[in-house]
Amino acid sequence: MYSFSFQNPTRIEFGTDKEKNMGKYMQECEAKKALIIFGSDRIKESGLFDDVTTSLKEHGIEFIECGGIKSNPLLSKVREGVSIAKEFGADSVLSIGGGSCLDSAKAIAAGSLYEGDVWDFFTGKEVEQALPIFDVMTLAATGSEMNSGGVVTNEETKQKYPIRGFSLYPKVSVINPKLQATVSQDYLVYSAADIIAHSIEGYFTATVQPELINLQVEANIKTVIRTTEILLKNPADLDARGEFAWAATMALNGITLLGTAGASYPNHMIEHAMSAVCDVPHGAGLSVVMPAWMTWWKDRNPKQFQRFAKEIFGLTTAEECIQALTAWFDKIGTPTKLVQLHIDGHVLEEVIDNATQNAVDWKMSDLYDRKAITEIFNLAK
Amino acid sequence: MYSFSFQNPTRIEFGTDKEKNMGKYMQECEAKKALIIFGSDRIKESGLFDDVTTSLKEHGIEFIECGGIKSNPLLSKVREGVSIAKEFGADSVLSIGGGSCLDSAKAIAAGSLYEGDVWDFFTGKEVEQALPIFDVMTLAATGSEMNSGGVVTNEETKQKYPIRGFSLYPKVSVINPKLQATVSQDYLVYSAADIIAHSIEGYFTATVQPELINLQVEANIKTVIRTTEILLKNPADLDARGEFAWAATMALNGITLLGTAGASYPNHMIEHAMSAVCDVPHGAGLSVVMPAWMTWWKDRNPKQFQRFAKEIFGLTTAEECIQALTAWFDKIGTPTKLVQLHIDGHVLEEVIDNATQNAVDWKMSDLYDRKAITEIFNLAK
Repeated sequence: MYSFSFQNPTRIEFGTDKEKNMGKYMQECEAKKALIIFGSDRIKESGLFDDVTTSLKEHGIEFIECGGIKSNPLLSKVREGVSIAKEFGADSVLSIGGGSCLDSAKAIAAGSLYEGDVWDFFTGKEVEQALPIFDVMTLAATGSEMNSGGVVTNEETKQKYPIRGFSLYPKVSVINPKLQATVSQDYLVYSAADIIAHSIEGYFTATVQPELINLQVEANIKTVIRTTEILLKNPADLDARGEFAWAATMALNGITLLGTAGASYPNHMIEHAMSAVCDVPHGAGLSVVMPAWMTWWKDRNPKQFQRFAKEIFGLTTAEECIQALTAWFDKIGTPTKLVQLHIDGHVLEEVIDNATQNAVDWKMSDLYDRKAITEIFNLAK
Repeated sequence: MYSFSFQNPTRIEFGTDKEKNMGKYMQECEAKKALIIFGSDRIKESGLFDDVTTSLKEHGIEFIECGGIKSNPLLSKVREGVSIAKEFGADSVLSIGGGSCLDSAKAIAAGSLYEGDVWDFFTGKEVEQALPIFDVMTLAATGSEMNSGGVVTNEETKQKYPIRGFSLYPKVSVINPKLQATVSQDYLVYSAADIIAHSIEGYFTATVQPELINLQVEANIKTVIRTTEILLKNPADLDARGEFAWAATMALNGITLLGTAGASYPNHMIEHAMSAVCDVPHGAGLSVVMPAWMTWWKDRNPKQFQRFAKEIFGLTTAEECIQALTAWFDKIGTPTKLVQLHIDGHVLEEVIDNATQNAVDWKMSDLYDRKAITEIFNLAK
């Protein structure tokens, strides 16, 4: 076990109708003026927006809206949110949506208490303070509801980069499986790929990896595989929906990295380039990158691959487990080849350039130079 | 998945020498006058007390001592601690020791901000506030370092009862595996039994038990069994010591109950009577109760026992897994029969009376009347 410091202060409110208490939760944190971040108007049509804002009104919380957040959320929209929040005098930010909304909300929460440009936080400036953040999750995958990070794309520079800081832990996150039951099949399987990616990054790259952590990571992966299959047959199964959502949270709330050392996020580093350049859905990009990266990486950590093969698929070799994971992605319908995302030719070159720059900026270029990244993408063809 | 609310605000500082930063951690929480709770003078002889208090002095934190906490900590000592804290004007409580010290510290922290008798909190009064709590753990088992509960024995009434409250989450807990490497073999195996007991209570009694939670509980149990065997051979193995400690924390920090419903603590309810009447070590009492209780309970949850048999021991039936667990307790040297604890005759009758009263006070008497408790103890003969 490696030394660690750990504190995760987020309060989780999990279960049916919890979003109808959001006003109470926010009042307990002394919020009075909220900026509400959301994506499309679907949350208005479904009644969710009304349910949440009714609760806010009942607790005397004023609010202003900032809708239109898209997948792979954009810096321009974050800047717009910061302006609205400052002008309105928001003392809190409430995201109603998936990871893109919440990640945008986190950046806006930091930017609202900062005089400079919010992008500074994505390029090295420390987040010292942020408005209190609240969220109602309509999609499970990101883990953002119980961690201190977020990812936003600067569309001018085509950089999809992370922001981090203790003050970015949400104060209260609502996870109501029922609200996630209407997610499209595409986004369900992309989410499954995203959670598995969050799980395997540390699992395969850490140089110190306690057995207890292996078991915890495998618990999350097994749960995602099992519940995805249930949900593809029966999207209304709320038990499976709940376990899927909770596995997503547990996969990236910090618990499964405790006592480890040396973990890195190469699949995310590479995928961010695909999203930044081609705007592919994050999970769809990851399911293409993972089998390729695993093939490229397997000989560096052969025992862990054999373990993964046995524990997850009841198989023996690294090759077999990569094949099995690829076959499972194919089965559930998330892409596994670049061609399925229409990434080739000069676009692929641009993606490789972008990933190579990510590797430099994320201090991973010792392992991931242009040659290595090209090799990985070649394995994804 | 059942609905839940979860927030665990404790900051964990895990690793070598972390106790030497305790002054810094406490200063960050604005502590200036600490009451230090500890057991025997061993922590002075080992240098640990000096290491911690040097750090306190460097950060301008005054302190006063309250030593002499014993296993199965006593209410009289807690009352003494409350008096000292009030007279000194303590603004914080620091435990250096195992679960008994920390549980006493929690009660003292609550009692110090209360005008009535601290025992009130053990008999129904809500804990509304408490002094900030800090701890350096010298023994792993209790889980108290990352939860909001504690247990103290009222020696006049022979009640070993719990105190609970959100303000009893420690602010900062230090877990340094090296400090736990000198624990006696007896207390190592009692601790193993305690962690397994924390794990199986919910696992076997919950009426709603998500698969993900099963996997997490099994991860903790597997880790305890594996690392106990390593530590019995090599007490200085700090990796095993660290995983053992972290499994102890994870087994009772609330994570493994999320989304479950109906969990209860019958083994603890029964064992507390043994500790209260006979002052047996908590873990030693639990390793006697568990096989008996499991035999008594198994037909109420046969599938879960078959699962436990397969996942933990690679076996098939409930009977086999109870035998295997008993054999493992015997092998590591923690008792499995009442006679090993010298509990029989009129003493046993008194223990049964005491447990029967616990069941009433803990609202478990619908299942655990005197007849049931007697049956369970008969299975432990």
